[in-house]
Amino acid sequence: MITKNQVKYIQSLGQKKSRDADNVFIAEGPKLVKELIDAENCRVTQLYALKEWIDNAGTGVEMIEVSVDELQKISQLTTPNQVLAVAEKIKWENEPVVKGNVSLALDTIQDPGNMGTIIRLADWFGIKNIFCSADSADVYNPKVVQASMGSITRVRVEHLDLLPFLKANNDIRIYATVLNGRDITKMEKINEGIIVIGNESKGVSDEILDLSNVQITIPKKGKAESLNAAVATGIILSHLV
Amino acid sequence: MITKNQVKYIQSLGQKKSRDADNVFIAEGPKLVKELIDAENCRVTQLYALKEWIDNAGTGVEMIEVSVDELQKISQLTTPNQVLAVAEKIKWENEPVVKGNVSLALDTIQDPGNMGTIIRLADWFGIKNIFCSADSADVYNPKVVQASMGSITRVRVEHLDLLPFLKANNDIRIYATVLNGRDITKMEKINEGIIVIGNESKGVSDEILDLSNVQITIPKKGKAESLNAAVATGIILSHLV
Repeated sequence: MITKNQVKYIQSLGQKKSRDADNVFIAEGPKLVKELIDAENCRVTQLYALKEWIDNAGTGVEMIEVSVDELQKISQLTTPNQVLAVAEKIKWENEPVVKGNVSLALDTIQDPGNMGTIIRLADWFGIKNIFCSADSADVYNPKVVQASMGSITRVRVEHLDLLPFLKANNDIRIYATVLNGRDITKMEKINEGIIVIGNESKGVSDEILDLSNVQITIPKKGKAESLNAAVATGIILSHLV
Repeated sequence: MITKNQVKYIQSLGQKKSRDADNVFIAEGPKLVKELIDAENCRVTQLYALKEWIDNAGTGVEMIEVSVDELQKISQLTTPNQVLAVAEKIKWENEPVVKGNVSLALDTIQDPGNMGTIIRLADWFGIKNIFCSADSADVYNPKVVQASMGSITRVRVEHLDLLPFLKANNDIRIYATVLNGRDITKMEKINEGIIVIGNESKGVSDEILDLSNVQITIPKKGKAESLNAAVATGIILSHLV
Protein backbone atom coordinates (compact mmCIF):
# COMPACT_ATOMS: atom_id res chain seq x y z
CA MET A 1 0.00 0.00 0.00
CA ILE A 2 1.38 3.35 -1.03
CA THR A 3 0.02 6.79 -0.13
CA LYS A 4 -0.91 9.51 -2.61
CA ASN A 5 1.89 11.66 -1.26
CA GLN A 6 4.42 8.89 -1.82
CA VAL A 7 3.22 8.47 -5.43
CA LYS A 8 3.53 12.19 -5.98
CA TYR A 9 6.99 12.28 -4.40
CA ILE A 10 8.39 9.41 -6.46
CA GLN A 11 6.93 10.82 -9.66
CA SER A 12 8.60 14.14 -8.86
CA LEU A 13 11.99 12.39 -8.83
CA GLY A 14 11.75 12.14 -12.61
CA GLN A 15 12.73 15.84 -12.46
CA LYS A 16 16.29 16.98 -11.76
CA LYS A 17 15.12 19.77 -9.45
CA SER A 18 13.41 17.34 -7.10
CA ARG A 19 16.33 14.88 -7.18
CA ASP A 20 18.80 17.64 -6.35
CA ALA A 21 16.62 19.01 -3.52
CA ASP A 22 16.74 15.69 -1.64
CA ASN A 23 20.02 14.36 -3.07
CA VAL A 24 18.30 11.14 -4.21
CA PHE A 25 17.46 9.24 -7.41
CA ILE A 26 15.34 6.27 -8.45
CA ALA A 27 16.29 2.96 -10.06
CA GLU A 28 14.13 0.05 -11.18
CA GLY A 29 14.21 -3.69 -11.78
CA PRO A 30 15.58 -6.57 -9.64
CA LYS A 31 19.05 -6.68 -11.19
CA LEU A 32 19.84 -2.98 -11.02
CA VAL A 33 18.30 -2.55 -7.56
CA LYS A 34 20.33 -5.47 -6.21
CA GLU A 35 23.52 -3.92 -7.58
CA LEU A 36 22.72 -0.66 -5.81
CA ILE A 37 21.93 -2.41 -2.52
CA ASP A 38 25.22 -4.32 -2.72
CA ALA A 39 27.33 -1.31 -3.72
CA GLU A 40 29.35 0.18 -0.87
CA ASN A 41 29.06 3.74 -2.13
CA CYS A 42 25.29 3.75 -2.55
CA ARG A 43 22.62 3.84 0.15
CA VAL A 44 19.16 2.66 -0.88
CA THR A 45 16.62 4.30 1.43
CA GLN A 46 13.26 2.97 0.23
CA LEU A 47 12.04 0.01 -1.79
CA TYR A 48 8.62 -0.21 -3.41
CA ALA A 49 8.09 -3.75 -4.59
CA LEU A 50 5.61 -6.44 -5.57
CA LYS A 51 4.96 -9.21 -3.03
CA GLU A 52 6.86 -11.77 -5.14
CA TRP A 53 10.00 -9.64 -4.99
CA ILE A 54 9.72 -8.91 -1.25
CA ASP A 55 9.31 -12.64 -0.52
CA ASN A 56 12.69 -13.34 -2.13
CA ALA A 57 14.59 -10.27 -0.97
CA GLY A 58 16.95 -10.53 1.94
CA THR A 59 17.64 -6.86 2.54
CA GLY A 60 17.72 -4.61 5.58
CA VAL A 61 16.08 -1.76 3.69
CA GLU A 62 12.54 -0.55 4.46
CA MET A 63 10.22 -2.29 1.98
CA ILE A 64 6.77 -1.14 0.97
CA GLU A 65 4.58 -3.68 -0.78
CA VAL A 66 2.80 -2.30 -3.83
CA SER A 67 0.29 -3.74 -6.30
CA VAL A 68 0.96 -4.00 -10.03
CA ASP A 69 -1.23 -0.92 -10.55
CA GLU A 70 0.59 1.06 -7.88
CA LEU A 71 3.98 0.14 -9.36
CA GLN A 72 2.74 1.28 -12.76
CA LYS A 73 1.91 4.67 -11.24
CA ILE A 74 5.36 5.31 -9.78
CA SER A 75 7.42 3.62 -12.51
CA GLN A 76 9.21 5.49 -15.30
CA LEU A 77 9.37 2.33 -17.41
CA THR A 78 6.91 1.28 -20.09
CA THR A 79 6.95 -2.17 -18.50
CA PRO A 80 7.51 -1.84 -14.74
CA ASN A 81 9.75 -4.54 -13.33
CA GLN A 82 8.89 -5.71 -9.79
CA VAL A 83 10.77 -3.14 -7.74
CA LEU A 84 11.59 0.57 -7.59
CA ALA A 85 14.28 1.90 -5.29
CA VAL A 86 14.91 5.38 -3.98
CA ALA A 87 18.60 5.84 -3.22
CA GLU A 88 20.91 8.59 -2.08
CA LYS A 89 23.21 9.86 -4.81
CA ILE A 90 26.47 7.92 -5.06
CA LYS A 91 29.20 9.04 -2.67
CA TRP A 92 32.78 9.23 -3.92
CA GLU A 93 35.73 9.56 -1.64
CA ASN A 94 38.66 11.82 -2.59
CA GLU A 95 38.97 13.81 -5.78
CA PRO A 96 38.95 12.08 -9.19
CA VAL A 97 42.49 11.32 -10.41
CA VAL A 98 43.15 12.40 -13.99
CA LYS A 99 46.94 11.96 -13.92
CA GLY A 100 47.97 8.45 -15.01
CA ASN A 101 44.43 7.49 -16.09
CA VAL A 102 42.39 7.58 -19.26
CA SER A 103 39.21 9.61 -18.70
CA LEU A 104 36.26 10.60 -20.85
CA ALA A 105 34.89 14.10 -21.30
CA LEU A 106 31.41 14.50 -22.74
CA ASP A 107 30.81 17.75 -24.57
CA THR A 108 27.00 18.16 -24.47
CA ILE A 109 25.78 14.58 -24.75
CA GLN A 110 22.07 15.21 -24.43
CA ASP A 111 20.40 11.87 -25.10
CA PRO A 112 19.98 10.01 -21.78
CA GLY A 113 20.18 6.63 -23.53
CA ASN A 114 23.53 7.56 -25.07
CA MET A 115 24.80 8.88 -21.75
CA GLY A 116 23.82 5.68 -19.90
CA THR A 117 25.35 3.47 -22.61
CA ILE A 118 28.58 5.48 -22.46
CA ILE A 119 28.80 5.03 -18.67
CA ARG A 120 28.28 1.28 -19.11
CA LEU A 121 30.99 0.94 -21.71
CA ALA A 122 33.39 3.14 -19.74
CA ASP A 123 32.90 0.55 -16.98
CA TRP A 124 33.60 -2.26 -19.48
CA PHE A 125 36.89 -0.66 -20.51
CA GLY A 126 37.97 0.19 -16.96
CA ILE A 127 37.56 3.97 -17.28
CA LYS A 128 37.12 5.46 -13.80
CA ASN A 129 36.00 9.02 -14.52
CA ILE A 130 33.66 10.82 -16.91
CA PHE A 131 33.59 14.61 -16.93
CA CYS A 132 30.46 16.10 -18.54
CA SER A 133 29.64 19.60 -19.62
CA ALA A 134 26.92 21.10 -17.44
CA ASP A 135 24.40 20.88 -20.32
CA SER A 136 24.85 17.12 -20.77
CA ALA A 137 22.08 14.76 -19.60
CA ASP A 138 21.94 14.37 -15.81
CA VAL A 139 23.59 11.15 -14.62
CA TYR A 140 20.62 10.61 -12.26
CA ASN A 141 18.00 11.01 -14.99
CA PRO A 142 16.04 7.72 -14.68
CA LYS A 143 16.77 6.83 -18.33
CA VAL A 144 20.51 7.29 -17.77
CA VAL A 145 20.40 5.21 -14.59
CA GLN A 146 18.54 2.37 -16.33
CA ALA A 147 20.77 2.39 -19.44
CA SER A 148 23.95 2.43 -17.33
CA MET A 149 22.87 -0.83 -15.68
CA GLY A 150 24.62 -0.38 -12.35
CA SER A 151 27.82 1.04 -13.81
CA ILE A 152 27.06 4.38 -12.12
CA THR A 153 28.33 2.85 -8.87
CA ARG A 154 31.72 2.10 -10.46
CA VAL A 155 32.25 4.99 -12.87
CA ARG A 156 32.31 8.46 -11.42
CA VAL A 157 30.37 11.00 -13.48
CA GLU A 158 30.98 14.68 -12.72
CA HIS A 159 29.05 17.55 -14.25
CA LEU A 160 31.17 20.67 -14.51
CA ASP A 161 32.25 23.54 -16.69
CA LEU A 162 34.28 21.58 -19.24
CA LEU A 163 36.47 24.30 -20.75
CA PRO A 164 38.06 25.58 -17.49
CA PHE A 165 38.41 21.96 -16.32
CA LEU A 166 40.38 21.01 -19.43
CA LYS A 167 42.48 24.17 -19.20
CA ALA A 168 43.34 23.33 -15.60
CA ASN A 169 44.52 19.89 -16.77
CA ASN A 170 46.73 21.09 -19.60
CA ASP A 171 49.53 18.72 -18.55
CA ILE A 172 47.28 15.84 -19.69
CA ARG A 173 46.94 15.05 -23.39
CA ILE A 174 43.45 15.87 -24.73
CA TYR A 175 42.05 13.74 -27.58
CA ALA A 176 39.13 15.14 -29.58
CA THR A 177 37.03 13.28 -32.14
CA VAL A 178 36.85 15.05 -35.52
CA LEU A 179 36.08 14.12 -39.13
CA ASN A 180 39.60 14.24 -40.53
CA GLY A 181 41.98 13.37 -37.72
CA ARG A 182 44.39 10.53 -37.05
CA ASP A 183 43.07 7.05 -37.82
CA ILE A 184 42.42 5.46 -34.40
CA THR A 185 42.88 1.97 -35.84
CA LYS A 186 46.53 2.83 -36.52
CA MET A 187 47.35 4.50 -33.20
CA GLU A 188 49.22 3.05 -30.23
CA LYS A 189 47.25 2.37 -27.06
CA ILE A 190 47.36 5.12 -24.43
CA ASN A 191 47.76 5.01 -20.64
CA GLU A 192 46.84 8.59 -19.86
CA GLY A 193 44.62 11.18 -21.47
CA ILE A 194 41.21 12.79 -21.67
CA ILE A 195 39.12 11.66 -24.64
CA VAL A 196 36.48 14.23 -25.59
CA ILE A 197 33.25 12.95 -27.16
CA GLY A 198 31.25 15.61 -28.97
CA ASN A 199 27.57 16.43 -29.18
CA GLU A 200 25.33 14.08 -31.18
CA SER A 201 24.84 16.52 -34.04
CA LYS A 202 27.38 19.32 -33.59
CA GLY A 203 30.47 17.36 -32.55
CA VAL A 204 33.18 18.79 -30.30
CA SER A 205 32.89 22.56 -29.79
CA ASP A 206 35.52 24.84 -31.35
CA GLU A 207 36.94 26.09 -28.04
CA ILE A 208 37.62 22.56 -26.87
CA LEU A 209 38.98 21.55 -30.27
CA ASP A 210 41.48 24.42 -29.97
CA LEU A 211 42.62 23.07 -26.60
CA SER A 212 43.01 19.49 -27.81
CA ASN A 213 46.42 17.93 -28.51
CA VAL A 214 45.40 15.04 -30.78
CA GLN A 215 42.52 14.97 -33.25
CA ILE A 216 41.25 11.43 -33.83
CA THR A 217 38.89 9.83 -36.33
CA ILE A 218 37.13 6.51 -36.86
CA PRO A 219 37.87 5.66 -40.53
CA LYS A 220 34.80 5.34 -42.76
CA LYS A 221 34.41 2.83 -45.59
CA GLY A 222 30.77 3.36 -46.50
CA LYS A 223 28.40 6.29 -46.80
CA ALA A 224 26.69 6.88 -43.45
CA GLU A 225 27.14 10.50 -42.47
CA SER A 226 27.88 9.90 -38.82
CA LEU A 227 27.96 7.34 -36.03
CA ASN A 228 25.86 7.27 -32.87
CA ALA A 229 27.84 8.97 -30.06
CA ALA A 230 27.80 5.90 -27.79
CA VAL A 231 28.89 3.59 -30.62
CA ALA A 232 31.70 5.99 -31.52
CA THR A 233 32.86 6.09 -27.89
CA GLY A 234 32.92 2.28 -27.77
CA ILE A 235 34.98 2.02 -30.94
CA ILE A 236 37.46 4.66 -29.77
CA LEU A 237 37.95 3.07 -26.35
CA SER A 238 38.39 -0.39 -27.85
CA HIS A 239 41.29 0.88 -29.97
CA LEU A 240 42.97 3.29 -27.57
CA VAL A 241 42.63 1.74 -24.12
CA MET B 1 -5.54 19.84 -44.78
CA ILE B 2 -5.64 16.16 -44.04
CA THR B 3 -8.75 13.94 -43.85
CA LYS B 4 -9.69 11.74 -40.91
CA ASN B 5 -9.14 8.68 -43.07
CA GLN B 6 -5.65 9.80 -43.99
CA VAL B 7 -4.80 10.33 -40.30
CA LYS B 8 -6.12 6.87 -39.50
CA TYR B 9 -4.20 5.30 -42.38
CA ILE B 10 -0.87 6.89 -41.49
CA GLN B 11 -1.27 6.01 -37.83
CA SER B 12 -1.93 2.40 -38.87
CA LEU B 13 1.49 2.30 -40.56
CA GLY B 14 3.05 2.19 -37.11
CA GLN B 15 1.96 -1.48 -37.23
CA LYS B 16 3.84 -4.09 -39.25
CA LYS B 17 0.59 -5.71 -40.48
CA SER B 18 -0.54 -2.49 -42.13
CA ARG B 19 2.88 -1.77 -43.61
CA ASP B 20 3.08 -5.26 -45.09
CA ALA B 21 -0.45 -5.06 -46.51
CA ASP B 22 0.42 -2.02 -48.63
CA ASN B 23 4.18 -2.62 -48.93
CA VAL B 24 4.91 0.87 -47.56
CA PHE B 25 6.55 2.56 -44.57
CA ILE B 26 6.82 6.04 -43.07
CA ALA B 27 9.81 8.28 -42.44
CA GLU B 28 10.06 11.71 -40.85
CA GLY B 29 12.18 14.85 -40.80
CA PRO B 30 13.68 16.97 -43.64
CA LYS B 31 17.05 15.19 -43.75
CA LEU B 32 15.79 11.61 -43.81
CA VAL B 33 12.92 12.38 -46.20
CA LYS B 34 15.29 14.10 -48.61
CA GLU B 35 17.59 11.05 -48.57
CA LEU B 36 14.64 8.81 -49.44
CA ILE B 37 13.45 11.10 -52.25
CA ASP B 38 16.97 11.16 -53.71
CA ALA B 39 17.57 7.41 -53.38
CA GLU B 40 17.17 5.47 -56.61
CA ASN B 41 15.79 2.37 -54.94
CA CYS B 42 13.07 4.13 -52.94
CA ARG B 43 9.82 5.65 -54.20
CA VAL B 44 8.19 8.22 -51.92
CA THR B 45 4.47 8.29 -52.70
CA GLN B 46 3.07 10.91 -50.32
CA LEU B 47 4.42 13.84 -48.35
CA TYR B 48 2.62 15.49 -45.46
CA ALA B 49 4.42 18.69 -44.59
CA LEU B 50 4.24 22.10 -42.97
CA LYS B 51 4.00 25.11 -45.27
CA GLU B 52 7.59 26.19 -44.52
CA TRP B 53 8.90 22.83 -45.75
CA ILE B 54 6.73 22.79 -48.87
CA ASP B 55 7.89 26.30 -49.80
CA ASN B 56 11.49 25.10 -49.89
CA ALA B 57 10.98 21.66 -51.39
CA GLY B 58 11.64 21.09 -55.05
CA THR B 59 10.14 17.62 -55.46
CA GLY B 60 7.81 16.00 -57.94
CA VAL B 61 6.01 14.07 -55.20
CA GLU B 62 2.40 14.82 -54.22
CA MET B 63 2.52 17.15 -51.21
CA ILE B 64 -0.23 17.71 -48.68
CA GLU B 65 0.08 20.75 -46.48
CA VAL B 66 -0.65 20.07 -42.82
CA SER B 67 -0.80 22.24 -39.71
CA VAL B 68 1.45 21.71 -36.69
CA ASP B 69 -1.49 20.03 -34.91
CA GLU B 70 -2.20 17.73 -37.84
CA LEU B 71 1.46 16.74 -38.09
CA GLN B 72 1.45 15.96 -34.38
CA LYS B 73 -1.47 13.57 -34.96
CA ILE B 74 0.23 11.51 -37.68
CA SER B 75 3.79 11.68 -36.33
CA GLN B 76 5.45 8.87 -34.38
CA LEU B 77 8.01 11.30 -32.94
CA THR B 78 7.80 13.09 -29.61
CA THR B 79 8.80 16.24 -31.46
CA PRO B 80 7.45 16.11 -35.04
CA ASN B 81 9.85 17.55 -37.57
CA GLN B 82 8.22 19.41 -40.51
CA VAL B 83 7.54 16.50 -42.85
CA LEU B 84 6.32 12.90 -42.90
CA ALA B 85 6.75 10.70 -45.98
CA VAL B 86 4.97 7.54 -46.99
CA ALA B 87 7.26 5.45 -49.20
CA GLU B 88 7.21 2.08 -50.90
CA LYS B 89 9.53 -0.43 -49.28
CA ILE B 90 13.07 -0.34 -50.70
CA LYS B 91 13.59 -2.36 -53.89
CA TRP B 92 16.77 -4.40 -54.28
CA GLU B 93 17.89 -5.82 -57.58
CA ASN B 94 19.44 -9.29 -57.71
CA GLU B 95 20.11 -11.56 -54.77
CA PRO B 96 22.38 -10.45 -51.90
CA VAL B 97 25.98 -11.60 -52.44
CA VAL B 98 27.54 -13.27 -49.39
CA LYS B 99 30.60 -14.68 -51.14
CA GLY B 100 33.53 -12.27 -51.01
CA ASN B 101 31.75 -9.87 -48.65
CA VAL B 102 31.51 -9.35 -44.92
CA SER B 103 27.87 -9.53 -43.80
CA LEU B 104 26.07 -9.20 -40.50
CA ALA B 105 23.54 -11.66 -39.10
CA LEU B 106 21.30 -10.49 -36.24
CA ASP B 107 20.07 -13.24 -33.97
CA THR B 108 16.94 -11.76 -32.37
CA ILE B 109 17.84 -8.09 -32.02
CA GLN B 110 14.57 -6.81 -30.63
CA ASP B 111 15.19 -3.21 -29.70
CA PRO B 112 14.33 -0.99 -32.71
CA GLY B 113 16.85 1.65 -31.62
CA ASN B 114 19.63 -0.95 -31.59
CA MET B 115 18.53 -2.31 -34.96
CA GLY B 116 18.52 1.15 -36.55
CA THR B 117 21.90 2.02 -35.06
CA ILE B 118 23.36 -1.26 -36.35
CA ILE B 119 22.10 -0.52 -39.88
CA ARG B 120 23.69 2.93 -39.70
CA LEU B 121 27.05 1.60 -38.60
CA ALA B 122 26.97 -1.21 -41.14
CA ASP B 123 26.65 1.59 -43.69
CA TRP B 124 29.62 3.42 -42.09
CA PHE B 125 31.81 0.31 -42.40
CA GLY B 126 30.69 -0.52 -45.94
CA ILE B 127 28.70 -3.66 -45.03
CA LYS B 128 26.16 -4.34 -47.78
CA ASN B 129 23.90 -6.99 -46.24
CA ILE B 130 22.28 -7.68 -42.87
CA PHE B 131 20.41 -10.95 -42.37
CA CYS B 132 18.00 -10.92 -39.42
CA SER B 133 16.16 -13.71 -37.66
CA ALA B 134 12.41 -13.46 -38.27
CA ASP B 135 11.85 -12.39 -34.64
CA SER B 136 14.18 -9.39 -34.88
CA ALA B 137 12.71 -5.88 -35.01
CA ASP B 138 11.16 -5.02 -38.38
CA VAL B 139 13.44 -2.88 -40.53
CA TYR B 140 10.42 -0.72 -41.43
CA ASN B 141 9.40 -0.11 -37.81
CA PRO B 142 9.34 3.72 -37.63
CA LYS B 143 11.90 3.72 -34.79
CA VAL B 144 14.30 1.58 -36.85
CA VAL B 145 13.84 3.82 -39.89
CA GLN B 146 14.54 6.98 -37.87
CA ALA B 147 17.57 5.51 -36.04
CA SER B 148 19.07 4.20 -39.30
CA MET B 149 19.09 7.76 -40.69
CA GLY B 150 18.76 6.91 -44.35
CA SER B 151 21.18 3.98 -44.29
CA ILE B 152 18.26 1.62 -45.07
CA THR B 153 18.56 2.72 -48.70
CA ARG B 154 22.19 1.56 -48.84
CA VAL B 155 22.26 -1.48 -46.56
CA ARG B 156 20.01 -4.38 -47.48
CA VAL B 157 18.19 -5.87 -44.50
CA GLU B 158 16.56 -9.28 -45.01
CA HIS B 159 14.37 -11.02 -42.48
CA LEU B 160 14.63 -14.79 -42.79
CA ASP B 161 15.01 -18.06 -40.95
CA LEU B 162 18.59 -17.61 -39.78
CA LEU B 163 19.62 -21.20 -39.06
CA PRO B 164 18.83 -22.71 -42.52
CA PHE B 165 20.31 -19.61 -44.14
CA LEU B 166 23.61 -20.06 -42.30
CA LYS B 167 23.61 -23.80 -43.05
CA ALA B 168 23.12 -23.07 -46.74
CA ASN B 169 26.17 -20.76 -46.60
CA ASN B 170 28.53 -23.20 -44.89
CA ASP B 171 31.33 -22.35 -47.30
CA ILE B 172 31.48 -18.92 -45.65
CA ARG B 173 33.18 -18.49 -42.29
CA ILE B 174 30.71 -17.70 -39.50
CA TYR B 175 31.89 -15.50 -36.60
CA ALA B 176 29.85 -15.56 -33.39
CA THR B 177 30.24 -13.22 -30.42
CA VAL B 178 30.71 -15.06 -27.10
CA LEU B 179 32.14 -14.30 -23.63
CA ASN B 180 35.38 -16.28 -23.89
CA GLY B 181 36.39 -16.33 -27.54
CA ARG B 182 39.31 -14.93 -29.51
CA ASP B 183 40.29 -11.37 -28.66
CA ILE B 184 39.09 -9.27 -31.64
CA THR B 185 41.73 -6.62 -30.96
CA LYS B 186 44.40 -9.21 -31.82
CA MET B 187 42.80 -10.68 -34.95
CA GLU B 188 43.65 -9.96 -38.58
CA LYS B 189 41.11 -8.06 -40.64
CA ILE B 190 38.72 -10.19 -42.72
CA ASN B 191 37.45 -9.84 -46.29
CA GLU B 192 34.70 -12.42 -46.16
CA GLY B 193 32.46 -13.81 -43.47
CA ILE B 194 29.17 -13.58 -41.64
CA ILE B 195 29.39 -11.95 -38.20
CA VAL B 196 26.54 -13.02 -35.92
CA ILE B 197 25.37 -10.54 -33.27
CA GLY B 198 23.35 -12.12 -30.47
CA ASN B 199 20.25 -11.08 -28.60
CA GLU B 200 20.52 -8.17 -26.12
CA SER B 201 20.22 -10.42 -23.07
CA LYS B 202 20.61 -14.02 -24.22
CA GLY B 203 23.46 -13.68 -26.72
CA VAL B 204 23.87 -15.95 -29.74
CA SER B 205 21.61 -19.03 -29.63
CA ASP B 206 23.22 -22.46 -29.10
CA GLU B 207 22.26 -23.84 -32.51
CA ILE B 208 23.97 -20.94 -34.27
CA LEU B 209 26.96 -21.12 -31.93
CA ASP B 210 27.38 -24.79 -32.95
CA LEU B 211 27.43 -23.77 -36.61
CA SER B 212 29.96 -20.98 -36.13
CA ASN B 213 33.62 -21.34 -37.15
CA VAL B 214 35.20 -18.62 -35.03
CA GLN B 215 34.10 -17.44 -31.57
CA ILE B 216 35.07 -13.84 -30.94
CA THR B 217 35.13 -11.60 -27.87
CA ILE B 218 35.61 -7.94 -27.03
CA PRO B 219 38.15 -7.97 -24.19
CA LYS B 220 36.93 -6.50 -20.90
CA LYS B 221 39.06 -4.47 -18.48
CA GLY B 222 36.43 -3.29 -16.03
CA LYS B 223 33.33 -4.73 -14.40
CA ALA B 224 30.30 -4.04 -16.60
CA GLU B 225 28.47 -7.28 -17.25
CA SER B 226 27.75 -6.69 -20.90
CA LEU B 227 27.85 -4.17 -23.71
CA ASN B 228 24.92 -2.73 -25.64
CA ALA B 229 24.39 -4.82 -28.82
CA ALA B 230 24.86 -1.87 -31.19
CA VAL B 231 28.01 -0.71 -29.40
CA ALA B 232 29.41 -4.27 -29.53
CA THR B 233 28.67 -4.46 -33.27
CA GLY B 234 30.49 -1.17 -33.84
CA ILE B 235 33.56 -2.30 -31.94
CA ILE B 236 33.69 -5.66 -33.74
CA LEU B 237 33.34 -4.10 -37.20
CA SER B 238 35.99 -1.48 -36.45
CA HIS B 239 38.50 -4.25 -35.65
CA LEU B 240 37.60 -6.87 -38.24
CA VAL B 241 36.59 -4.96 -41.36
